[in-house]
Amino acid sequence: MTQSILPPASDAIRLAVSTVIFTVRRDGDDDRPSIALPLVRRTRDPHEGLWALPGGWLGTSEGLDAAASRTLAQTTGLAPSYLEQLYAFGDPHRSPTRVVSIIYWALLRADEVDAQLAARGGVPENVQWFDAASLPTLAFDHNQIVDYALWRLRNKAGYSRIAHGLLPDEFTLAELREVYEAILGKRLDPANFRRQIDVSGTLIPTESFRTGSHRPARLYRYDRDVELAEHGPLVAAQLHPLTESSTT
Amino acid sequence: MTQSILPPASDAIRLAVSTVIFTVRRDGDDDRPSIALPLVRRTRDPHEGLWALPGGWLGTSEGLDAAASRTLAQTTGLAPSYLEQLYAFGDPHRSPTRVVSIIYWALLRADEVDAQLAARGGVPENVQWFDAASLPTLAFDHNQIVDYALWRLRNKAGYSRIAHGLLPDEFTLAELREVYEAILGKRLDPANFRRQIDVSGTLIPTESFRTGSHRPARLYRYDRDVELAEHGPLVAAQLHPLTESSTT
Repeated sequence: MTQSILPPASDAIRLAVSTVIFTVRRDGDDDRPSIALPLVRRTRDPHEGLWALPGGWLGTSEGLDAAASRTLAQTTGLAPSYLEQLYAFGDPHRSPTRVVSIIYWALLRADEVDAQLAARGGVPENVQWFDAASLPTLAFDHNQIVDYALWRLRNKAGYSRIAHGLLPDEFTLAELREVYEAILGKRLDPANFRRQIDVSGTLIPTESFRTGSHRPARLYRYDRDVELAEHGPLVAAQLHPLTESSTT
Repeated sequence: MTQSILPPASDAIRLAVSTVIFTVRRDGDDDRPSIALPLVRRTRDPHEGLWALPGGWLGTSEGLDAAASRTLAQTTGLAPSYLEQLYAFGDPHRSPTRVVSIIYWALLRADEVDAQLAARGGVPENVQWFDAASLPTLAFDHNQIVDYALWRLRNKAGYSRIAHGLLPDEFTLAELREVYEAILGKRLDPANFRRQIDVSGTLIPTESFRTGSHRPARLYRYDRDVELAEHGPLVAAQLHPLTESSTT
């Protein structure tokens, strides 16, 4: 960063912060979970009436993480436990005026979504949840941003315990597999999946079972001694870190 | 991103782009390679006289990737073949005035550095290369930024072919191991390293050998059918993509 004495002619560039917040929910015909995210309907131009990612302008004396949390809470009423900076989108033509958007992403379990929305009295006006696999045309470059966030989620699922952020504390192997299926967008062989989980050594079996219309299924939990993800040197500077995981 | 009709009071926030560009070079007493990066001496306040990452202000009609390439070339004369967005640093107190810096990182082989600097007539004024392991106190939060970039480099080395970006087309296994040692900051057992490389299946032995004071060593090259890194959906939008690698 080089600073000149005179302010540069860059005051025409404005900074926004938006968040892609994924959850896994069951609402399809086949009762399989899918990835969903909340969007906010724009009530003014540009792109009035289109759906957009929740977000807002960066405050003059506000940090990036704080701005992401604030704008997400103000627009959707949601407060995820993990919030991670994803990417800065700055194409000069992505908006009628020059806006650089710093994008965060987060995971929130469906039961946390329900509890947080109930605590604030329901879903805010102009907010709606969409299936990530069948989005309408969004405002600005937000379709591209969601695609990028989904791609990162899929990559992370392969080498970290990211799926944990979408599951309750205790879950069956079938529920874990269905979260991976939702993230990866494909069916996984149950026997192969069980073997891979076994060798990973990250799950601890509990003495509890999920009962219901099917045969009772044992509940598992993640081994808390294994970090959800390696946090890296920015932890102290971040509000809710969830950074790259190590493969070593 | 929500846009209001009236401009927000955010024109006090300015956007800069800086680049951490790593190379591996041999200049220590033991002839082992180490990670090095170029820094630029600041010639004005704030932090006049301190070393800082190469960079500059984002142009009003300039994309982020283009700004990273331009400012890097203007300050250091370097043009890496890979340039990837790393992170946006936006703490309100990181600079006397409010500046959000979008950081890129790049890898450049030592022979490419030499060729590019020779083509422009030498190292530019106020530019110097530093060993990443023993930096002085840098301007702004640039020590923290370099630490973060080194952490990402180490993580990527574990699950991708990132080390390729620091090697010539053909190299010995010892040269490859020394690059990994420089990145990871520790010695690796040569026999174990050879076994891990064998099972990875990413190297192709050539019929050439490195000769010299030691016993001739076979040269290898990377299998070009294996992508350096999975590029993800932003490839078309990026000037020089080098994004997350998949582990599947």
